[in-house]
Amino acid sequence: MPERRVGLWLIGALGGVGSTTALGLAALRRGLTDTTGLVTALPQFSGLDLDEPSAIVVGGHDVRRGSLADSVATLARRIGAFDATVVEACRADLEEWGENLRPGAVLNGGDAIAALADGPNRPQPSSPRAAIDLLQNDIRSFRERHRLAQVVVMNVASTEPAADHRPEHASLERLQPALASDRGILADSSIYAYAALDLGYPYVNFTPSPGASLPALIELAEHRGVPTVGQDGKTGETLVKTVLAPMFARRNLRVLSWVGHNILGNLDGRVLSDPRNKESKVRSKDQVIGQIVGYPLQTHTSIEYVESLDDWKTAWDHVHFQGFLGVRMSMQFTWQGCDSALAAPLIVDLARLTLLAQRRGEAGILQHLACFFKSPLGVAAHDFFQQFELLESYLRSARNST
Amino acid sequence: MPERRVGLWLIGALGGVGSTTALGLAALRRGLTDTTGLVTALPQFSGLDLDEPSAIVVGGHDVRRGSLADSVATLARRIGAFDATVVEACRADLEEWGENLRPGAVLNGGDAIAALADGPNRPQPSSPRAAIDLLQNDIRSFRERHRLAQVVVMNVASTEPAADHRPEHASLERLQPALASDRGILADSSIYAYAALDLGYPYVNFTPSPGASLPALIELAEHRGVPTVGQDGKTGETLVKTVLAPMFARRNLRVLSWVGHNILGNLDGRVLSDPRNKESKVRSKDQVIGQIVGYPLQTHTSIEYVESLDDWKTAWDHVHFQGFLGVRMSMQFTWQGCDSALAAPLIVDLARLTLLAQRRGEAGILQHLACFFKSPLGVAAHDFFQQFELLESYLRSARNST
Amino acid sequence: MPERRVGLWLIGALGGVGSTTALGLAALRRGLTDTTGLVTALPQFSGLDLDEPSAIVVGGHDVRRGSLADSVATLARRIGAFDATVVEACRADLEEWGENLRPGAVLNGGDAIAALADGPNRPQPSSPRAAIDLLQNDIRSFRERHRLAQVVVMNVASTEPAADHRPEHASLERLQPALASDRGILADSSIYAYAALDLGYPYVNFTPSPGASLPALIELAEHRGVPTVGQDGKTGETLVKTVLAPMFARRNLRVLSWVGHNILGNLDGRVLSDPRNKESKVRSKDQVIGQIVGYPLQTHTSIEYVESLDDWKTAWDHVHFQGFLGVRMSMQFTWQGCDSALAAPLIVDLARLTLLAQRRGEAGILQHLACFFKSPLGVAAHDFFQQFELLESYLRSARNST
Amino acid sequence: MPERRVGLWLIGALGGVGSTTALGLAALRRGLTDTTGLVTALPQFSGLDLDEPSAIVVGGHDVRRGSLADSVATLARRIGAFDATVVEACRADLEEWGENLRPGAVLNGGDAIAALADGPNRPQPSSPRAAIDLLQNDIRSFRERHRLAQVVVMNVASTEPAADHRPEHASLERLQPALASDRGILADSSIYAYAALDLGYPYVNFTPSPGASLPALIELAEHRGVPTVGQDGKTGETLVKTVLAPMFARRNLRVLSWVGHNILGNLDGRVLSDPRNKESKVRSKDQVIGQIVGYPLQTHTSIEYVESLDDWKTAWDHVHFQGFLGVRMSMQFTWQGCDSALAAPLIVDLARLTLLAQRRGEAGILQHLACFFKSPLGVAAHDFFQQFELLESYLRSARNST
Repeated sequence: MPERRVGLWLIGALGGVGSTTALGLAALRRGLTDTTGLVTALPQFSGLDLDEPSAIVVGGHDVRRGSLADSVATLARRIGAFDATVVEACRADLEEWGENLRPGAVLNGGDAIAALADGPNRPQPSSPRAAIDLLQNDIRSFRERHRLAQVVVMNVASTEPAADHRPEHASLERLQPALASDRGILADSSIYAYAALDLGYPYVNFTPSPGASLPALIELAEHRGVPTVGQDGKTGETLVKTVLAPMFARRNLRVLSWVGHNILGNLDGRVLSDPRNKESKVRSKDQVIGQIVGYPLQTHTSIEYVESLDDWKTAWDHVHFQGFLGVRMSMQFTWQGCDSALAAPLIVDLARLTLLAQRRGEAGILQHLACFFKSPLGVAAHDFFQQFELLESYLRSARNST
Repeated sequence: MPERRVGLWLIGALGGVGSTTALGLAALRRGLTDTTGLVTALPQFSGLDLDEPSAIVVGGHDVRRGSLADSVATLARRIGAFDATVVEACRADLEEWGENLRPGAVLNGGDAIAALADGPNRPQPSSPRAAIDLLQNDIRSFRERHRLAQVVVMNVASTEPAADHRPEHASLERLQPALASDRGILADSSIYAYAALDLGYPYVNFTPSPGASLPALIELAEHRGVPTVGQDGKTGETLVKTVLAPMFARRNLRVLSWVGHNILGNLDGRVLSDPRNKESKVRSKDQVIGQIVGYPLQTHTSIEYVESLDDWKTAWDHVHFQGFLGVRMSMQFTWQGCDSALAAPLIVDLARLTLLAQRRGEAGILQHLACFFKSPLGVAAHDFFQQFELLESYLRSARNST
Repeated sequence: MPERRVGLWLIGALGGVGSTTALGLAALRRGLTDTTGLVTALPQFSGLDLDEPSAIVVGGHDVRRGSLADSVATLARRIGAFDATVVEACRADLEEWGENLRPGAVLNGGDAIAALADGPNRPQPSSPRAAIDLLQNDIRSFRERHRLAQVVVMNVASTEPAADHRPEHASLERLQPALASDRGILADSSIYAYAALDLGYPYVNFTPSPGASLPALIELAEHRGVPTVGQDGKTGETLVKTVLAPMFARRNLRVLSWVGHNILGNLDGRVLSDPRNKESKVRSKDQVIGQIVGYPLQTHTSIEYVESLDDWKTAWDHVHFQGFLGVRMSMQFTWQGCDSALAAPLIVDLARLTLLAQRRGEAGILQHLACFFKSPLGVAAHDFFQQFELLESYLRSARNST
Repeated sequence: MPERRVGLWLIGALGGVGSTTALGLAALRRGLTDTTGLVTALPQFSGLDLDEPSAIVVGGHDVRRGSLADSVATLARRIGAFDATVVEACRADLEEWGENLRPGAVLNGGDAIAALADGPNRPQPSSPRAAIDLLQNDIRSFRERHRLAQVVVMNVASTEPAADHRPEHASLERLQPALASDRGILADSSIYAYAALDLGYPYVNFTPSPGASLPALIELAEHRGVPTVGQDGKTGETLVKTVLAPMFARRNLRVLSWVGHNILGNLDGRVLSDPRNKESKVRSKDQVIGQIVGYPLQTHTSIEYVESLDDWKTAWDHVHFQGFLGVRMSMQFTWQGCDSALAAPLIVDLARLTLLAQRRGEAGILQHLACFFKSPLGVAAHDFFQQFELLESYLRSARNST
């Protein structure tokens, strides 16, 4: 293990994405898997001073009680796609990292998430401010205990209901007083984001929950000089959409309608079967086509919980389009992906890239990471290739500035 | 109609692509259809001195006897997707242009193509040299008759069998003597290409036939100062492949196998059901994935003639890929496109762009048009977005130089 | 035209199914199309005394004002799949039949249907009883005017919202008094059903609306000695489901989940985009799998209105199943059908078979026609092959009894 | 374990189907899996005197050297779908049964199969007659050693090339003399079939290889009073075809073309990548549609070896059909099945049903088992539901005769 070590603090560490990330980091460290799926392992990233995956120590919050090693073992059994010998060989690491988990705080996560929070001794912070103190204490002591050079906080928890817009969200000055007095002023994801940024730790939102997206929190990131990025990891069906839609646009083929149906059976899916939680997810998935093609069109996106599929998210998209002389044609695709295995390497990528950005003195929204997200903060473009060009242009300048 | 007029000489004018192109140009001229499907109608092409579609006069060669207006009417009935009133309203233009068709010459097109050449009074040139003279005479007199400022020659005929490699193809100096004496020295498509380039007319090869791809012919283009480009128009399944494969590459997802099955029932499909003609098409379609992802993998591409589908080419692709921690996933797509309606606007685009290039003094291979072709001459990249960037970069410089 | 003529009275005559049925009957009468799609044209129906399609005269109710010939012409343009010369050649028949259309009555059809009823001079019956009188008058005078031996009434209107259960529905005795006094006692489809059965005319419900399914109306059918059958024509996705599910059952493969997504853009789809109207449709489509396999499982069916698809209903089904040794596998299908063209020949079949049944003295529910319906009245089996065996067994006995 | 025991002799025991069958029988015996996938576990089979799966002892021939337990472990790793604890718990049974394997004899299996036969001490019989003696000796001693009441011989080996038609195949009288003198008189599968039937043991051909299909061998079965049945197990894509095609037929929808593309990566697939072996498989898969719909139509079936898919056979079928008024529509399906897990339970079913038939005194072809096969011997019908009715009618009469 290298001298310099960094921390990855996962909010929702026991979920599918969190568990798979931990397993993957352990497997990489032990040389039991290769870097397939890691964007930062592509040749164009060589020469950058990125942290090695083996330098990453895992910790995190989870509202559920449970052992990280057991979560991974259960997930492995359900998914049926990890190598059993790898899971076994990584057990010791996972048990060690499992010691770093803390229960966190549930104030306003919505009923579906509250139902997961099962422990009797769970902390009951009296206000958002008290919750922030508690969370900061957890993360700071993780850093100190492991002598970590940096820590990045990553939201991989289940989707929250769409949050209310509140005038206090507009600026840090208006938000801060409310933290002590108004229990419902922030969604839980934003409380965690506040805790991280206020500590000076980068915050990444891999979910469609509000997180750091409020103006007040972006102000906080800039004020503290900390990078932040989000939101809603682009792992499967939406990734394909943002790759195909530019093709239609550049060929001047007119998309008449684009329908996408997603079915999945993991916890994410279960939480999304609550209509309020689903709403923010569908909105995040459904907006991309119109932005890319540049004209209004009928789109429809559904997500349904189908228990038997577990983590294997299956999506069917139907694209109806018009070509020359008014001829109507269609394209369909089916995506059958293991959600956790698609997301986990991107978590590692985002950890490496935000930690690098912090060392490079970047603060506020990291626009060059837009290609990782369904609803990239601060970037209007959804076209994956335009977004990837932002990343490559950053890489060129980062290499030049070294 | 504008003062300045240009000619589009279609080799295989009575085929689906040729007929649809003629119908489309007539419909555009009469304001009966919009520019959907024309790449050159995108905003980024504005400000360039492109010929208006209404300035294009159509002529061409076809081995079959037949009327252009009847070919369009038959195609419209078979495809069932053109507006009947548009077809009717364009009949007069098509009849007029039909007067510009000539039988051309068949020397070495393969049995499947020879079977189409049904006329008794067909010219029987004694040598490639004699054929070239005959073809040049046809095209030159078309230009003179219509007082055309420029003429572009476009190969939209059915796919020929793969041609033999001959040492004489290596240079113009070695090729020229053989034209008089060696009947089999050039595939028919190359004879047409020679005729065009030697006349000083741009030549575009929309098919996988050899055309102008031989070193001797590229030398001829450069020598005469004429632009040429090809080959094999990228209209459907391969277009999608070259859009999706970059996604897998940029996400570092390892493609394990990529299988593509195409079924279609038009003349193109019938000619391709001869294994010798099919070979060059499949080769053109099958190479792209490995080039884009940068490692060898198992690919398989088939094209089968299924009569009932007619011009509606349907393709199913299955992509098997591996992600993080060795997890294997899959993606499938089905493409249901009307081949002629996809190809025709690209013919108009290529005519406009090569005529512009000629006016700008460009000669030899036009690399910036790679995004239109499955096997772009002179460009290694198959990634559609890299190819499109070549075009956009050309547009920027063309605009600056105006 | 044969001496003996019969009437087909279509409720919702101007809709896609009604219009296509009329066009098809005209085309058959004129020898312009063949009997593809007609079940009653199969060899096993020969020897039965069925009415020739050419003996059928069309009339009907529709809440919309409009000409039948124009409805057909518009539909033909939107669908793009009928032969234009056939549509033209049948225009005279359609205009003639169009004279037989009457506005009908709207009492309780739901907002989505009421919105279609656009005429100012529309009859406003004061009670269900008054509506029945009006409808009976329309149908009876159609019969008399054309000297028809029999008339069958067929509901091909858009789907109504699910109706309230009312104690008066339990028997004819309890229902009859309410007809005069309680405006909301019956859904509109049941008012039409009452009118038909009470007149002694067979009533067929091709929709999921309540129609004749209430005990009181079945009692009426039996009392008047009239056959009735329904409901909700099985034309596409559900047909395939009831063919595939028996395969899984007979191979003892355990279906874990079955998801079906339907998208369509015709009026039916528009009416279904009102959640109350959709509910009865989805319920009809979603129940079949569990009944066939014989155990509870997770199913999900959606129907979404996607305007650009018009009458081309496209469905994607995903079947997740378990085989030997717990291995999980999947099957998907996509169905791309023209709804009206699938339904229309079944309307002709049902007309011929119910008219025959009436002549054979059959009354009440015709169970042998279950294979035509998603929710067959009086038959529990959804397995298409079991249902077809009911029909074949009826044919054998009908032939023997002749 | 019950008193009475029977033997299942697998030709090709180390292949995917043979290995999975052995694993499944061990797992059933130990109560570690349920009977999902076994047709004979359906309610309609109760009351028949079928052998319990736990009474079946496994033995077999395989041209490869190797351990049955290792074959199963390797297959389990490759397929990734069996429960690891089940595989482990069954290891002792598989090792015990592995002792019953014998190398068999390779005379005329084709190059692809010969390449598998790797052992140096392999028996080299000098003639078909000598091979038959050797095989019979192996099977007989298996029966004696384990004191088995009956033994059924099942061909689950890879597909052979199509065999030559020889006049000696026409009758037993003509065949017998040639066995001693003509090395190439019979395909290997027919040599095994001869050995089994001549011993008085039922023979089942789960492959498209010739096996017992020759008139001379059927005569032998009848002469010895032994049942036989085949051929080519109907497990996946063809099963679906024979379920869907009857739907089109009974709805009088005209199938215009039916294309099926299969991709798979197991040994079966590798052997089939030899065009001579593939030919018999494709023929078996391709004939069914025309027979069911009753008119000629264009069909195309392909099987391609795609290594990465291993045992997960994936098929895409495209059905183009015509409905009322000439409207053309389409249906597609994708089948993603684990070939071995689909086939293995049918092997158990066929063993139970042929052993029962032998006890009931049935000899020659067992027509009631047609539903298990792509090319059922002695039955013209390919319609799965007609075939299943044959089985149900047999069950009724078998129950009555008990």
